[in-house]
Order: sequence, then C-alpha cells, then structure tokens
Amino acid sequence: MRIAVIPGDGIGKEVVPAALPALTALCETFGLPLSYDVLDWGADTWLATGVGLPDGAVERLPRTYDAVLLGALGDPRIPDMAHGREILLGLRRGLDLYVNHRPVVLDSGVIDIYRENTQGLYAGVGGSVTRSGSVTVAIDESVHTRAAVEDFVRYCLRRLRDDGRRKVTLVHKSNAVPNTGRLWQDVFRRELTAFPELTGSEEYVDAFCYHLVRDPSPYEGVLASSLFGDIISDIGAALMGGLGLAAGASVCPETHFALFEPVHGSAPDIAGKGIANPYATLMCLALMLDHFGHGAPADLLRTCVREAARGATATPDIGGHGTTDLFMDTVLTLLDHH
Amino acid sequence: MRIAVIPGDGIGKEVVPAALPALTALCETFGLPLSYDVLDWGADTWLATGVGLPDGAVERLPRTYDAVLLGALGDPRIPDMAHGREILLGLRRGLDLYVNHRPVVLDSGVIDIYRENTQGLYAGVGGSVTRSGSVTVAIDESVHTRAAVEDFVRYCLRRLRDDGRRKVTLVHKSNAVPNTGRLWQDVFRRELTAFPELTGSEEYVDAFCYHLVRDPSPYEGVLASSLFGDIISDIGAALMGGLGLAAGASVCPETHFALFEPVHGSAPDIAGKGIANPYATLMCLALMLDHFGHGAPADLLRTCVREAARGATATPDIGGHGTTDLFMDTVLTLLDHH
Ligand SMILES: CC(C)[C@H](C(=O)O)[C@@H](O)C(=O)O
Ligand SMILES: CC(C)[C@H](C(=O)O)[C@@H](O)C(=O)O
Repeated sequence: MRIAVIPGDGIGKEVVPAALPALTALCETFGLPLSYDVLDWGADTWLATGVGLPDGAVERLPRTYDAVLLGALGDPRIPDMAHGREILLGLRRGLDLYVNHRPVVLDSGVIDIYRENTQGLYAGVGGSVTRSGSVTVAIDESVHTRAAVEDFVRYCLRRLRDDGRRKVTLVHKSNAVPNTGRLWQDVFRRELTAFPELTGSEEYVDAFCYHLVRDPSPYEGVLASSLFGDIISDIGAALMGGLGLAAGASVCPETHFALFEPVHGSAPDIAGKGIANPYATLMCLALMLDHFGHGAPADLLRTCVREAARGATATPDIGGHGTTDLFMDTVLTLLDHH
Repeated sequence: MRIAVIPGDGIGKEVVPAALPALTALCETFGLPLSYDVLDWGADTWLATGVGLPDGAVERLPRTYDAVLLGALGDPRIPDMAHGREILLGLRRGLDLYVNHRPVVLDSGVIDIYRENTQGLYAGVGGSVTRSGSVTVAIDESVHTRAAVEDFVRYCLRRLRDDGRRKVTLVHKSNAVPNTGRLWQDVFRRELTAFPELTGSEEYVDAFCYHLVRDPSPYEGVLASSLFGDIISDIGAALMGGLGLAAGASVCPETHFALFEPVHGSAPDIAGKGIANPYATLMCLALMLDHFGHGAPADLLRTCVREAARGATATPDIGGHGTTDLFMDTVLTLLDHH
C-alpha cells in the first residue's frame, strides 16, 4: 500500500496525522508493507501559489501510489471552496473514481450508500450569461451517459450482493427531473434482473429523505446520483450521531485506484483546538484496508475505534471529554492489547 | 374567495371533501363570501381522456377563481407521475406561482421554508440523446434567471421581515453547482442589504440538511431553489411528526393568485381506508384565509385543528385511533364552540 496523504485544511491537518499511527501499527502487526508521502495540497498552497491540483498530478498519482487519503478541504478565506473543487472534484473526475461508498452505521444495521461521483450536476457542465457585468442567466447541467450509469449500477449491485445485502433502493426524482430519472430507472431495472438475490425499490428523493429521517431501519443498499448522494450521506451522518463518524471511499473499479475521505469538512470553527474527532479518518483507514483485501486488520481497527468511542477519552462531539490525542492514545493502546 | 377545488388522486379525494366543511363553517361564522367548484383533474381523467391540464386552463383559472385547493396527485398506474407533472408543474409555471411557502411548525418554533417554484431543475429544460432506441445521454438543466431569483428573494425577505422573523438562511451548493450557487449568493447578499432587520447566513445543502436533522431550533427563514426546497420541506415534515401535518402555499406575488396544497402525496397505500389525515389540508385552508387577509378565522382554525390533533379522534399516523371523519367531527365541534 503506497499512499498519497493529503491532510488538506482545518481539522484535516489534525485528524490525518493523528490517525496515521494506527495504520502504521496495524501494518507492523500484520506484516503489511506500507509507505506514504504527505502532500501539501490545500488552502495555504492555493493562496500562496494559485495552484490547487498541480499540473499532471492526475497522471502521476496512480503511477506512484495505490490510493489517496484526504483529510478535508475548505477555508473561510476562499469563496465557494474553489481550491477544494479543483482538488477534490479534479481527483474524482480525473481518476475516474466513479463509485463513492459511504457506509451509514446505525444500531438498526448498516446502510451502504453508493453515490455516483463524476456525473450528473457534478459533471462540471454549465455556464452563465452576463450582461453589463452581472449574471442574468445561470445554467448548470445534469449530464449522465448510459455507459457510466450502467458501470456504476452494475458494480454497486455486485458489491451489495457479495456483501450479503438483500435490498437495494434507487433514489431519483423522475417526476420533476425526468430525463435523468428515466435513464437511472431504466438502467437500474435492467441491471437488477441479473441479481435475483437483491430486491429493488425506487423512491423519489424527497420521500426517501423523509423516510430515512423517520425510520432508517428498512434500508440496506442505496444508489444515488452525485447530488442526491451528497445530501443523503450527510443525513446518514446525522443519524449516525455526527459528521465526526462518517467515512467514505471513492473507487475506480477498473484501475482499483481509490481515495478515502471522511464525510466531514474542514470545520474551521473547531480547527486548532485539538478536539477534532479522528473517528471518521480511522474508519477511512479501515475501508482502505478492506479495499486492499486486508479484512482482518480492518475489522480489528473498527473494533478498537468503536470501543474507544464509548470511553471517556472520546472527543466532545460524541459525548466524551477527551481530545484528538487522548482518543488516539486509547485507540493505540487497544490495538496494542488485541 | 372563489376557489377551484382539485381533490386529485388517492387520499386527495378523501381529505379535500372532508376538510371543506371547516372552511364553509368559518366563512359563515365570520361572514366571508365563499364559492367553489370541484374539478375532476387527476389520474382517472388522464387515463380516460389523456388530458391532465386541460387546454386553456391556465388562462381561464385566474379569470374565474382567486385560488386553487389541490389535494394530491399520483397514481400507481401512471409512471413518473406524468399527469401530476402536467397539472402541478403546469399550474405552478403557467400561473407564475413562483413562491412556495412551507411552514415547518416545531415545538422549538416555526421555520418558514420558502422554495422557488418555477426555475432551476424545475424549469423543464433538457432532453435525451437516443441511439438504437435507448437513451445514451440524459440531460436536465438547472436554469435560473437573475430577474426571477431577485423577485423571489425580495418577496421572501419582505415577508420574513413583516412576520417579525430575524434570521434567514440561503441553502445552496456553490461548491459543486457553481453557476447556480453564485447567482443565488450574489442576489441574496445584495437584496439583504435592504433588510437590516434580518441576519443572513448561507449553507451548503448537505450541511444544512445535516444541521436541520440534528437541531432545527436555530432556523427561522430558509430560502432554497426548487429541488433543494423539495427535499428540505420533506425533512421538515419528518421533524414535524409526519407528512400528514405539512401544508404549503404557492403564490404569485404580482397577481395574488395562489395554489394551496398539502406536502404529502396521494398515499395509495392508505387510500380508501378512511384513515387519511386531513390536518395538512386544514392547515392549507388556514394559509388560504391568511392569504386573503382573514387572520382571525385562520388562527381559530389552527387552534381547533391542533386541539383536535391532541385528542383520541386523531388519525393513526399522529397517534390517535380515529378516522378522517371522526377527526373532522371533532374539528367542526370545536369550531362550533369557539
Ligand atoms: C466539498 C464538496 C464539493 C463535496 C461534494 O459535494 O461532493 C462534499 O460535500 C462531499 O460530500 O464530499
Ligand atoms: C409531485 C412533485 C413534482 C412535487 C415537487 O417535486 O415539487 C412534490 O414532491 C412537492 O413537493 O410538491
């Protein structure tokens, strides 16, 4: 595992260095080769040099590394997260990381949210009409190709089946956004026929969010476009008990290259206070170990992190009175004793 | 008040006739002139004649009526709600009902959700590229004109100020859907300067949904585009205690014509059982009375409906063991005694 580590901005610069020793410890215990480099991409570099995603990075990264670990991007000095968009959306689109998997871990079970990561309103197609210096018409296009939706849906259905899931829900809005909705429905229904183990259902995004908030327990697998997946996974994080807990993996099934990234942002309000929660980043490391076929260390890490999260050294956002460092001390001690 | 009543489909055909006597009673008590006609638009007519929104209806309606009361549209026999889209989106767009107000009534206070109702992804712009009979590219465009966003934002800010609200939040996604996000932010910031009584804030839609689910209490006024408003108002309904409670008004500020409509759908699963909740439709009638300047009967109706909802004759969805009719009996008795 050769990892490009991008702490990024805000609490990303705290949780990533804090969490990495857990990966190093696990790799030593299990005899797994590990190397990583830390890249300084983020707000400071953008403000100093104007560069977000360096030229040629998208070509170089997969030659040198197997995966990226990204902390968080976002800085109050940069409107609309311009640098974050360039880096994050640039990596997702440039490296074809079209499957974004965000597990929502609840007492009632796990919901595997799969989000298409490169198309729809995230395709970057659109523009504005300007007159006398001000925008008079603003257009953003949701564009999907059948090929991309097919690849995405097929991969997700296969993963869900292989993981023993039984139900899968397509989230769409065909009654108001009809071209997109119909393409997704058509592909979903066709691909499902090859997976008799899975029972499919379809919901309008508004009704789905309503049901998710009221009672998430019936859901197992969820497939959504980029924008709906973005919203749904944040609601999932709220149901989990906080953004501090939610992890995600963005994967290209063909190249196997992947980017792991907590769902939370850079949280400028708590950055620098030493209380950021490394839980989501640790869960990203577990997803990374899973991705490279190391299920045993991944499960051990999850067990220890969950145990630590129930203790007094947990960070304040999840009810403890610990700090980033105290929480990590507990995690590393638990890893050591297992 | 001359009302076109469209019960529509499913439980719409139950809650609308059930709720109307409350309006009749109030108009008698308060000496308000009222007349209405019932129109049979909906799934049955669509299936029998192929007509959803009759030709010329958009021109005729405002000549004959002051407002529309719509129950619900949606029928399992019609994919993607094609007739509902024609009727509902046709009326919203055709009558320029560009302000959709959906109050979220919580113990911690009321959140006034204002949703732009005619543009963005609801503009109906887009298409599909077909090859050998199957769609290969699907496009839906989010299109906003500055003039429409300005009119919407200005009207909402004025309403919020006049209603004594102090805080207003713009929900957007400028970091991933930049043209739209920037236009909305620009208009919001400019228009806000004319309302020193209001404190503005801006949130990404994913973060907003997260915060809304975690703790809705800080929010007072919320402004959103059509798609985000659709999702947000369903989450609001979940927080209120169910879709059976959420009402909405779609208004054209220039003509004053309005359409009142519960947030819930036609609920085919419970249609015909006599247990549909008329609460949201009654709250639509209260919004209608407000709209025509009859604050006293509106408040009386709200008081009686809320009292009835706490009693045993409330419908099962809100914890009672009543029926549509039993609940209405209680409401009408309470109206009679006040
Ligand atoms: C930062 C932003 C562009 C991003 C997204 O919308 O995908 C974030 O919200 C996420 O969920 O990873
Ligand atoms: C029926 C559908 C087109 C509609 C919408 O999306 O506006 C509904 O969900 C609503 O919220 O009124």
